[in-house]
Amino acid sequence: MSAEAPYLRPRPANYVPLTPLSFLGRTAELYPDRLALIDEDRRFTWQEVRQRCDALAAALMDIGVKPGDVVSVLAPNTAEMFEAQFAVAMAGAVLNTINIRLDADTMAYILDHAETRVLMLDRQFALMAEVALQRTKGGRPVIIDLGGPGDALPGSQRHSDLVRSAPADFQPVVPADEWQTLCLNYTSGTSGRPKGVLYHHRGAYLMALGTIAGWGLSGHPTYLYTVPMFHCNGWGHAWTMTALAATIVCCRQISAKAVYDAIGSFGVTHFGGAPIVLGMLVEAAEAERPVLPHKVRVMTAGAPPPAAILEKVEALGFEVMQVYGLTETYGHVVQSTWEEEWNEMDVAQRATIKARQGVRFPMMETAEIRDVESGKRLPKDGTAMGEIVLRGNTIMKGYHKDEAATEAAFAGGAFHSGDVAVQHPDGFLEIRDRYKDIIISGGENISSIEVESALYRHPAVSAAAVVAKPDAKWGETPCAFVELKPGASVTADELNQFCRQHLSGFKVPKCYVFESLPKTSTGKIEKYKLREKVKTTP
Amino acid sequence: MSAEAPYLRPRPANYVPLTPLSFLGRTAELYPDRLALIDEDRRFTWQEVRQRCDALAAALMDIGVKPGDVVSVLAPNTAEMFEAQFAVAMAGAVLNTINIRLDADTMAYILDHAETRVLMLDRQFALMAEVALQRTKGGRPVIIDLGGPGDALPGSQRHSDLVRSAPADFQPVVPADEWQTLCLNYTSGTSGRPKGVLYHHRGAYLMALGTIAGWGLSGHPTYLYTVPMFHCNGWGHAWTMTALAATIVCCRQISAKAVYDAIGSFGVTHFGGAPIVLGMLVEAAEAERPVLPHKVRVMTAGAPPPAAILEKVEALGFEVMQVYGLTETYGHVVQSTWEEEWNEMDVAQRATIKARQGVRFPMMETAEIRDVESGKRLPKDGTAMGEIVLRGNTIMKGYHKDEAATEAAFAGGAFHSGDVAVQHPDGFLEIRDRYKDIIISGGENISSIEVESALYRHPAVSAAAVVAKPDAKWGETPCAFVELKPGASVTADELNQFCRQHLSGFKVPKCYVFESLPKTSTGKIEKYKLREKVKTTP
Repeated sequence: MSAEAPYLRPRPANYVPLTPLSFLGRTAELYPDRLALIDEDRRFTWQEVRQRCDALAAALMDIGVKPGDVVSVLAPNTAEMFEAQFAVAMAGAVLNTINIRLDADTMAYILDHAETRVLMLDRQFALMAEVALQRTKGGRPVIIDLGGPGDALPGSQRHSDLVRSAPADFQPVVPADEWQTLCLNYTSGTSGRPKGVLYHHRGAYLMALGTIAGWGLSGHPTYLYTVPMFHCNGWGHAWTMTALAATIVCCRQISAKAVYDAIGSFGVTHFGGAPIVLGMLVEAAEAERPVLPHKVRVMTAGAPPPAAILEKVEALGFEVMQVYGLTETYGHVVQSTWEEEWNEMDVAQRATIKARQGVRFPMMETAEIRDVESGKRLPKDGTAMGEIVLRGNTIMKGYHKDEAATEAAFAGGAFHSGDVAVQHPDGFLEIRDRYKDIIISGGENISSIEVESALYRHPAVSAAAVVAKPDAKWGETPCAFVELKPGASVTADELNQFCRQHLSGFKVPKCYVFESLPKTSTGKIEKYKLREKVKTTP
Repeated sequence: MSAEAPYLRPRPANYVPLTPLSFLGRTAELYPDRLALIDEDRRFTWQEVRQRCDALAAALMDIGVKPGDVVSVLAPNTAEMFEAQFAVAMAGAVLNTINIRLDADTMAYILDHAETRVLMLDRQFALMAEVALQRTKGGRPVIIDLGGPGDALPGSQRHSDLVRSAPADFQPVVPADEWQTLCLNYTSGTSGRPKGVLYHHRGAYLMALGTIAGWGLSGHPTYLYTVPMFHCNGWGHAWTMTALAATIVCCRQISAKAVYDAIGSFGVTHFGGAPIVLGMLVEAAEAERPVLPHKVRVMTAGAPPPAAILEKVEALGFEVMQVYGLTETYGHVVQSTWEEEWNEMDVAQRATIKARQGVRFPMMETAEIRDVESGKRLPKDGTAMGEIVLRGNTIMKGYHKDEAATEAAFAGGAFHSGDVAVQHPDGFLEIRDRYKDIIISGGENISSIEVESALYRHPAVSAAAVVAKPDAKWGETPCAFVELKPGASVTADELNQFCRQHLSGFKVPKCYVFESLPKTSTGKIEKYKLREKVKTTP
């Protein structure tokens, strides 16, 4: 075949930049009257969602939002929050959803760093936002009042006015290039300032199709949005569920009752949540736990679901799949797939499999472990621990205004997750620790998670964090910080004996500190503070 | 947001050219021991398929195949044919699968036009190929003997030797650019020379993910390959089923018994085929029609499944979805989706819906009808007839060595299908005719398909073709060419009366010609010959 002739170039007929906006266009065209959103007493069809998105996009352009400007949103999972996942891009702007649980200082940092042009604000967070706005260094953004409980900030424009109707000739902006930035999502790091992760249209499109293929979604699911939409665009399900013309049930406040009610009232078929949500469902009072009318499928992430919880929640009729990912990977990129033949196994075996993070989703190219020092690929032997490195089209563009961190994250041609795992012979990854939390004692790697898991099994322990303590002989040794349950008591000796029963000797902590653990606003334990403290602990 | 910083460019970690080769890589890595191929008495796991593809790719490179060279295949649906869908691209070459039912002249034309460097040849077609090769103008390609019944051509290299093992350090070629040509598929036009349709890696990847989403595929299907792999790479299912780590059952010869046996023996869950295959299943002797052990899903294309066949085949336990597409669109791009609430309808209503071609697949951007003269978009009123035009990422790059035809196909910024349809208010397309087969009589459009359908209902008619006859008064009038069933007889007057009962007056043919109809080697009626003939018909 001779060199490519110019007439074989990409053209509008055969090359369309990949973008999740295509999904909204198709679904609104083909399923205009199908129910799209349930938000408390409100109902919107897909045609209405499309019209409201058009109107909001037109309004943002009227306000003066230019292509590439950042529109931030501070809201729980409402219809407005869902629509923002599309409308902001339809104005050519970049969506920045802010974690509602952040402190005012961090919010102010984000608003400044993102150079937020417009802030869409649910009244529930108006006071917090006002404090943050007063601490920003930049100019005050235009505020759009999304409604909700409480009062709007003075000078806000009302969202309900803006979404009434778009100009008759309105055409949404479509990306000229699929690499164009779609979102700016800040990490919730446990140390230092959050980093601004940039997503592009191509990645969002492939995230949706890859999730459909990987999770085996079909038909029109009814999806309960328990996962905050400010986390990786709600794990990308805003796009995925739109592609499927699903019905999305918004959820301002998660409780076991809310989940069971939504299943009963709306026929919810799918939802997502951290293992703590599964725990809630199991621990709900008998009266709140109806017999499920159909199988409900749950995507869980953040930590392996404990075997006891998994067993109980599956007995209730839920089908749980663990996934793994980071803000930098648009959310889930590894999944604990399930093979039918494993149904024959006993509960303990099944829980062991489901506790593993799994294998890469179809849209990912590689997910492997590499030695942290040498960068060499490690064997799939279930023993060698290395950093999970990833390659694929749903990896971020990079960090906003942070070239150094971007280059570090992509060193060696793959994305460094910072998570340390083993890879089993069947390819399943199983996380052992965050890279910086690994303790190296006498040349042996100790997973702080493994030691913490042992401590959590003690009935007196409410929370535990294990960090490396510098040691003249061993290099490092594990030091345990322990928070006890109210009214419980245990001594360091007793804990030490307990650990010896459950851990290899070299993994048993050499010191125990009893105290209330420092936590971020999102509930993550701030290990970096403990690492500082441990240097002065005798 | 300021202008994009260079460090936010695509890199190997976050940008991987889309290619179906990624699916084989992932499936072979994650499901090495899962059964991939069943071909008569042979069985191959995904690891074995991958190894055989590596070895074949290495062998092709040894033979001297260079990036962009064309490797043609003439074979039925065998393991070798399936593996060629990947191995040829893994050598950087372009796959050209040739329709086994073509005549030697057309085959020779294709071998010359494609500049075939290597011909992979099943012995079943060795004699036909030899005739074709002797009629080519170019040099004789290297022949790889794929086995099969009969003798190999002299001088062939044995495929079974070539796939034994790849060099230890072998790395398949991966496309540097997702726009790179993957396949060259010749149309089976009913007039003139076939055109060479060029596919790229991006389109094949998106075809697979779009099919999974649109057909709602999940788990690991067992797919019976009744659709010839030389048609649009077997409707793209070679890639789709690989992405799902399916089990593919090869099928050299299609019969009702073969289908039922495969369902019984291998647990086939999915297959595809023209409505004639459905007819075979319905007409099979009672003894050959076992009760299906599970729901079997069928994708059908080429013509709307007749209501009577549809009713019977669904009663047997098959779930049928009609799709529409062309070689130029990588196969199916429009699907007759099914909504659960339609299950309440009676059989006739359901058949009416299923007879429509449907709505665009998720990977398609637009599928609409446009007025042939003005190019204006026509309303979705179920009445206005216009040409189906399509836009999306699974539209061909263009025609090989045919710039004029490419420009014509893409005129006005969309791909012209040449098919004339109405679009119903719910967006469903329903084909009325091929553009060139439409008859314009007194300014009214007459669908030749509609007139033919009326004729087919007459018990004496075996085949019918209706073409435009030039007419001084009306411009054109319909002229019917009719082939009768053996032993049947009917007069022109009787047919005319029959048509008056079933058609509007202006659609009733003005002349009837009784004769055996000219057909291509693939069984399509050659209307262009009838159009020539009608000019001299009184």
